[in-house]
Amino acid sequence: MRQAGRYLPEYREIRSKVSFLELTKTPELCAEVTLQPIDRLDVDAAILFSDILVVFDAMGVDVHFNPAPEIERPVRTAADVARLRWGDPREDVRYVLDAVQACKRALAERVPLIGFCGAPFTTLSYLVEGKGSRDYQHIKGMMFSEPALFHRLMESMTELLCTYLGGQVEAGVDALQVFDSWAGALSPADYREHVWPHMRRLVEHVRTLGVPLIAFVRGNANLLQQSAELGADVIGVDWTIDFAQAIEIVGSDRVVQGNLDPQILLGPEELIERRARAVLDAAKGARAHIFNLGHGISRYTDPAKARLLVDVVHGYGA
Amino acid sequence: MRQAGRYLPEYREIRSKVSFLELTKTPELCAEVTLQPIDRLDVDAAILFSDILVVFDAMGVDVHFNPAPEIERPVRTAADVARLRWGDPREDVRYVLDAVQACKRALAERVPLIGFCGAPFTTLSYLVEGKGSRDYQHIKGMMFSEPALFHRLMESMTELLCTYLGGQVEAGVDALQVFDSWAGALSPADYREHVWPHMRRLVEHVRTLGVPLIAFVRGNANLLQQSAELGADVIGVDWTIDFAQAIEIVGSDRVVQGNLDPQILLGPEELIERRARAVLDAAKGARAHIFNLGHGISRYTDPAKARLLVDVVHGYGA
Repeated sequence: MRQAGRYLPEYREIRSKVSFLELTKTPELCAEVTLQPIDRLDVDAAILFSDILVVFDAMGVDVHFNPAPEIERPVRTAADVARLRWGDPREDVRYVLDAVQACKRALAERVPLIGFCGAPFTTLSYLVEGKGSRDYQHIKGMMFSEPALFHRLMESMTELLCTYLGGQVEAGVDALQVFDSWAGALSPADYREHVWPHMRRLVEHVRTLGVPLIAFVRGNANLLQQSAELGADVIGVDWTIDFAQAIEIVGSDRVVQGNLDPQILLGPEELIERRARAVLDAAKGARAHIFNLGHGISRYTDPAKARLLVDVVHGYGA
Repeated sequence: MRQAGRYLPEYREIRSKVSFLELTKTPELCAEVTLQPIDRLDVDAAILFSDILVVFDAMGVDVHFNPAPEIERPVRTAADVARLRWGDPREDVRYVLDAVQACKRALAERVPLIGFCGAPFTTLSYLVEGKGSRDYQHIKGMMFSEPALFHRLMESMTELLCTYLGGQVEAGVDALQVFDSWAGALSPADYREHVWPHMRRLVEHVRTLGVPLIAFVRGNANLLQQSAELGADVIGVDWTIDFAQAIEIVGSDRVVQGNLDPQILLGPEELIERRARAVLDAAKGARAHIFNLGHGISRYTDPAKARLLVDVVHGYGA
């Protein structure tokens, strides 16, 4: 998950001078911000500071952050779709690939760098809804009433994202994560029919790129089994399911990532320690475990508590 | 779920003259709107037209609908809490009880009337967050960092809601539904520790009122088992889980309600029929089944499609 953010004074310092969008488009600043949590928290991997929606720059779609993302002209009709451009992210989102290189230089192999993109469904959902949604009426409306249009869009989006991820690997990322943050809005039957085949295509492409892939399908633990069947190297798990149960579902032979509720960091040290240990205890049932928060870190988090969490994880079993 | 709404021209007609809040506070109009879906869709029960947040009128908290609900001064500190009033909803929200009576008169026993309230956690979440939330940082922050304050608030809220539901039964509702719409934000462990005991207390109170209770815990099917353990008469299920699996979890001896994704109604007739039948087929595994949508109906729904759905359900097995 994004590790940098407004909970860090050194991040706020930079954001006092540049907007979020400017920051994502300035490789040297991206690198600086990407490394802030490495220095302060001692985490074991860096995650590229960027946003899943910058890829819209390859599609001629304007997105604003106020601070939530918003698209001026959501794509809802066949005519809207016809106006879309399907460019090459390696050119149109070059600044992200430059940021990857800047991060790698700045990291100097201290820790690996994780690149990422939104999953086809989540990215397309933003494009169609235009902003955050509670009920996903537009994207689901398209899925149910115009399935052919929906699938054509999903195919094109998947191709674009495959190219984008390929560019990130060429630029130097050591691992990739794909975020299907909005998949939880779907029933298991709809995820299977409308989303899974496209995700599978993306996962198969990433397998040719030579870096490990973390697949994170958020918001509905009933999609975990399908998530496991995608064949990614690591299965991300959010906090809405007991971790031991999640491992039982995906199989003890798989590598899992998860799953502390990020808001636990708003609680006292004793709670953070107890809950972190519970996740680590449960993870003994898995082949291997990447400890992380089940989603992004809250802006109200005390950085000292985040550091405490990292120390608890590092000290576990020692 | 709310059956009346902007998808019905006769509802929009009334709303062109009065605001949402005025509507909820005008018993005769509430009754008219409550009966609209009965007339047009031939559904088997009426659900009181109201909102879970009107109960704030018993607490001295102002809520606006623009159209999403917003609270001017969210309750976040001990000082905010001290300013709260814990009134008697039977007096302060008298207009809802008058609406119940108006509905009962207008229905003249055609179909039963379902009353409702928000669950303690969901209601309190609105109070603390102040509006819709994606990450529930404030309510969870309170839960984790000030558990004693949180539990005191949950206790008071539960008492208030028990009184409110008692008032609705006295006024004539034939059944009750409790909506824990925001519970899905919690991990199973946190729901168990921080929410379940209060819900249980509410369910036990309703058992003394002599009407059946539907408990609906939305947004995380991993809470279904805990939902079943509440002891309510009917267990509501949203669409994020396969219905047969849900029935397996809650037990085949229980009555279930659910679970069609409301956005399916945006699709073609063939899809609606197929998906409705799939739910009905799965429901054969339960003791009894109330067919419904897994959440509120979309404003973009064609009323003819909603009617088709009712006809499919009524014709099933005939």
